[in-house]
Amino acid sequence: MKSGELTLALIQHGMGADVDANRTASLDGIAEAAARGAQLAVLPELHASEYFCKYQDPALFDLAEPLDGITRRLLAEAAADYKMVVVGGIFEHRAPGLAHNTAIVLECDGSLAGIYRKMHIPDDPGYNEKFYFTPGDLGFEPVDTSVGRLGVLVCWDQWYPEAARLMALAGAEILLYPTAIGFDPADDEAEARRQLDAWCIIQRAHGVANGLPVASCNRAGYEPDRSGGTYNAEFWGHSFVCGPQGEVLAEADAASEVLVCSIDRGRSETVRRTWPFFRDRRIDAYDGLTRRFGD
Amino acid sequence: MKSGELTLALIQHGMGADVDANRTASLDGIAEAAARGAQLAVLPELHASEYFCKYQDPALFDLAEPLDGITRRLLAEAAADYKMVVVGGIFEHRAPGLAHNTAIVLECDGSLAGIYRKMHIPDDPGYNEKFYFTPGDLGFEPVDTSVGRLGVLVCWDQWYPEAARLMALAGAEILLYPTAIGFDPADDEAEARRQLDAWCIIQRAHGVANGLPVASCNRAGYEPDRSGGTYNAEFWGHSFVCGPQGEVLAEADAASEVLVCSIDRGRSETVRRTWPFFRDRRIDAYDGLTRRFGD
Repeated sequence: MKSGELTLALIQHGMGADVDANRTASLDGIAEAAARGAQLAVLPELHASEYFCKYQDPALFDLAEPLDGITRRLLAEAAADYKMVVVGGIFEHRAPGLAHNTAIVLECDGSLAGIYRKMHIPDDPGYNEKFYFTPGDLGFEPVDTSVGRLGVLVCWDQWYPEAARLMALAGAEILLYPTAIGFDPADDEAEARRQLDAWCIIQRAHGVANGLPVASCNRAGYEPDRSGGTYNAEFWGHSFVCGPQGEVLAEADAASEVLVCSIDRGRSETVRRTWPFFRDRRIDAYDGLTRRFGD
Repeated sequence: MKSGELTLALIQHGMGADVDANRTASLDGIAEAAARGAQLAVLPELHASEYFCKYQDPALFDLAEPLDGITRRLLAEAAADYKMVVVGGIFEHRAPGLAHNTAIVLECDGSLAGIYRKMHIPDDPGYNEKFYFTPGDLGFEPVDTSVGRLGVLVCWDQWYPEAARLMALAGAEILLYPTAIGFDPADDEAEARRQLDAWCIIQRAHGVANGLPVASCNRAGYEPDRSGGTYNAEFWGHSFVCGPQGEVLAEADAASEVLVCSIDRGRSETVRRTWPFFRDRRIDAYDGLTRRFGD
């Protein structure tokens, strides 16, 4: 594991129908992150577009781009310009009829350090991801970079302790979650509060269980359902960074913001000596984790 | 799954050197729980004695008792008297040189519904459990009772998402954690706060990840290190109950208290429809969870 401080930035921003404007917002955020000393910048999931999974429309596959498409090129240029590692997210066109929700990691010379294809795919009213995204086939493999071994996961993965654990067992030094999650306007305030709290604590708990810092970057703002339906979304922002005891180090509110935070990478070693959870895992008794259910 | 309300009580109390007094405190708590309408009472881990694992002493194995020993008999009588399911914890003498940290579940007619032998065994300064307790050999099997299928785990298990998940996959309707955890007097206030927060959020996160209510019953109060050493312990109490979104329903502070809480068992069905995490588990990609580490 690397030691010393790591300064990272979460580029929480809103998206609209104008893809170029979204890209500009992402790049402006990266520039601000660089000016504020960040060595690593994380963008929200699918940051080049509105969250298009609100409904199912084959025409929206036009938004997909190959791994070497324009978003990667722009992020690579920014990474090289600012000598910063950048984690972005694209709608990856892999083959006709085969697309992924993919995080891409650019090294600070602009080269591609690695990718992660979202493994857990949700499908809920307003979040029709199983229509658009083929489940990832690369497993839970961290990406090695000059700022450390990054456990990059995407959104729905954040609800799965298995994903966090597998990244940690594979040597990840930090977990990163580009995300797009928001309130259902039909929910009352208490339900909205429970959902936001649940989202925070489960990711903080991944930090606790694995003795790792965690950073989650969500999109922000209102996006209409452009099909004319009722699945308008209010993305809740609240990007945050926590340490290896789940302690919150920095937290945004609901508005667009570049959240910059320095973490002490040496704390994982210290915390894991006190809480040596890896030592005591009952790997002889975990076979059932690969079963769908026990009945 | 059962529907309707379940009223449960967490009997958070302190322990001293007088074992009879400890048993009386447990039984008094059960009586109060019954008077307040509880159908299920949960006691702290090893509630008949002080937490004896502060240091290593072969003589302390005298505290161990067989599965049909006095603690079970007393709890069975109380369960039958009050027609209540009772979850207690014993230092189980299984054979010479073979002891377990075991939770016992008494049915409301006083019969033994089942047991759980603590699977994850800690070993830290002041918590020398690997000296006393053989790791459990019964796996993560819920116990069926008249108030539902109980996912009974013990203390250190609470840091392991694997344990919670396996109980949930085996059909547990609620997770119960008899516990003994406290502050190290050498830690400063900020560290103590981080530890208590981490303990709360990881258990609440098991509720979120598995769409289940969770109840954790800790011991309370100061216990001296009777070896003359420095491992005095201040057990932090803070027993709590949360619902299937991790929402806190009831919470004790640091003092002894019978915490009574009613939970709506139907909420797991509702919450899991909105957050169908079980549906999307990547059981094809979880083999690595049975490995010690990835290197």
